[in-house]
Amino acid sequence: MPSQLFEGPEKKVELAVVDGHPSLRALGESFWRRVVEAAGADVLSVLRNEHIDAYLLSESSLFVYDGFVTMITCGRTTLVDAVEVLLDEIGEEAVSVFVYERKNEHFPHEQPTSFFDDARRLRSLIDGRAVRFGAEHEHAVSMFYATREHVPEADDRTLEVLMHGIDPARAAQFEGDGAQSGLAARLGLDRALAGHVVDEHFFEPTGYSLNALREMAYTTLHVTPQQVGSYVSFETNVGEFDGALSHLVTEVVEVFSPESFDVVAFEPTDAPVRVEVRGYALRKVVCEPLAGYHVTFLHFFRAPPTVERAFELTLD
Amino acid sequence: MPSQLFEGPEKKVELAVVDGHPSLRALGESFWRRVVEAAGADVLSVLRNEHIDAYLLSESSLFVYDGFVTMITCGRTTLVDAVEVLLDEIGEEAVSVFVYERKNEHFPHEQPTSFFDDARRLRSLIDGRAVRFGAEHEHAVSMFYATREHVPEADDRTLEVLMHGIDPARAAQFEGDGAQSGLAARLGLDRALAGHVVDEHFFEPTGYSLNALREMAYTTLHVTPQQVGSYVSFETNVGEFDGALSHLVTEVVEVFSPESFDVVAFEPTDAPVRVEVRGYALRKVVCEPLAGYHVTFLHFFRAPPTVERAFELTLD
Repeated sequence: MPSQLFEGPEKKVELAVVDGHPSLRALGESFWRRVVEAAGADVLSVLRNEHIDAYLLSESSLFVYDGFVTMITCGRTTLVDAVEVLLDEIGEEAVSVFVYERKNEHFPHEQPTSFFDDARRLRSLIDGRAVRFGAEHEHAVSMFYATREHVPEADDRTLEVLMHGIDPARAAQFEGDGAQSGLAARLGLDRALAGHVVDEHFFEPTGYSLNALREMAYTTLHVTPQQVGSYVSFETNVGEFDGALSHLVTEVVEVFSPESFDVVAFEPTDAPVRVEVRGYALRKVVCEPLAGYHVTFLHFFRAPPTVERAFELTLD
Repeated sequence: MPSQLFEGPEKKVELAVVDGHPSLRALGESFWRRVVEAAGADVLSVLRNEHIDAYLLSESSLFVYDGFVTMITCGRTTLVDAVEVLLDEIGEEAVSVFVYERKNEHFPHEQPTSFFDDARRLRSLIDGRAVRFGAEHEHAVSMFYATREHVPEADDRTLEVLMHGIDPARAAQFEGDGAQSGLAARLGLDRALAGHVVDEHFFEPTGYSLNALREMAYTTLHVTPQQVGSYVSFETNVGEFDGALSHLVTEVVEVFSPESFDVVAFEPTDAPVRVEVRGYALRKVVCEPLAGYHVTFLHFFRAPPTVERAFELTLD
């Protein structure tokens, strides 16, 4: 019997097409709704600018550019099913970048598939390789990626900040009555959301999603504020956080004050990714070149540890 | 499709009967074999002394005293099924201590049940409460225990050292050709095994189990040396490690040089459990009174972290 606990940690796919391929946006909203539905999610709203169609989903987000797409889904969604619809339409020979990513789950036993299941299925659709950043029994991100040539642009960067065990008082702001539009901005995400147009959604009884666009860049935030398994993900492809990466990560982390968090950075060069956040210690550093990018995984925890009580589990 | 990877992390049950109850050993070997088979394991050998019957199992160990029993199983065993056979025989009203424990798994998706499933079923057999030491997405131990009065003796202590990611060179000693009897003792577990009678088993193609007895005490060691998900558990109820707990833990950890390890201590008093092991940092401390004991959970990792490469996952 599945529990009532929501799985915040996400699955994600990034897919870029080769130069000269017809626009992915031109596939039209009805096609993208079909992709979303294949994963077991629904489109709640769409925010558009000159470069991007940003779909806010019942389970996370979808960003469609002319030349690439990023889709993020949480809960018990089956993102691999959406990938199959997408690859059927585009054809694997038109793909220049393909990365399927899966965060370690809070309640893996309640997922319909494991990462291994997904990766085996993806390999039947597109040639690739699977790797894991971090140990299987700790915080980790697993990726299946297509092994083909790709040289990213100098500003082609993606940053993920994946936070576990958020502060209960911060979490409460995202529940029923306390929820108000413009919340994320007011909480202090000034640096992260500067100059963005924002689409946000409060879920009943609890939960919050935000899509934000600024010219060629998206920023997205998903908050799962439940007492057990609380989780927040922040992701952006704003390219100019160079030199101030620690400031941006610190701003995001301070809003939610999590017990621990992971940083995943896709960078076009192998320059070391350095992050320091006051009050947190670095536990793990994994670097791997992958699909033309240099990917860095960092895991941090609140330090020093204090003596905690055990957590009572509700069995009903 | 389940993978070929073995699940080292264990499930465990401790059950004590009220004073004056007939001896549990007197239930006889055929009864205990039936209990073991209910979990999906087999008895490989039995080591006996005046106080204890120590069964070495195809998946871990069973120790039967006159007044209590400790059963530990790994892999995809269903220890709850064994508990049901046991409680059917003994009757829940004869139980003075009942603690069911489950370590966070490496491959939870391949387990037939989750801890929640197990705890719900156990609650239908005996009144109790479920708690978790550590976060659900990190190293953690979950316990379901019967909420009844119990006052442990002054030397009634249990120590678990649960090691993840063991050094490949150390692991290789437990594989096929390198395997030799007396191995654990020669590796340097002098303090841990001093004065014990030992029963050990090498598994094909890989794996090692050891049961050891010394008067009223047992010590047990289980080694899963595979490349992905390697794991070693050490457990003892030798009572006199007081004051030298760090020395004993250090001895065990140094034999296997794991990436990280957890310590679980059941103590009769609330005196703080202090462990320091050179080269490892403390990440988590959780203390909880439970079934008359004071239980402490500690999580350590190798520090400081070095830059690692991602781990390639085999999909075949």
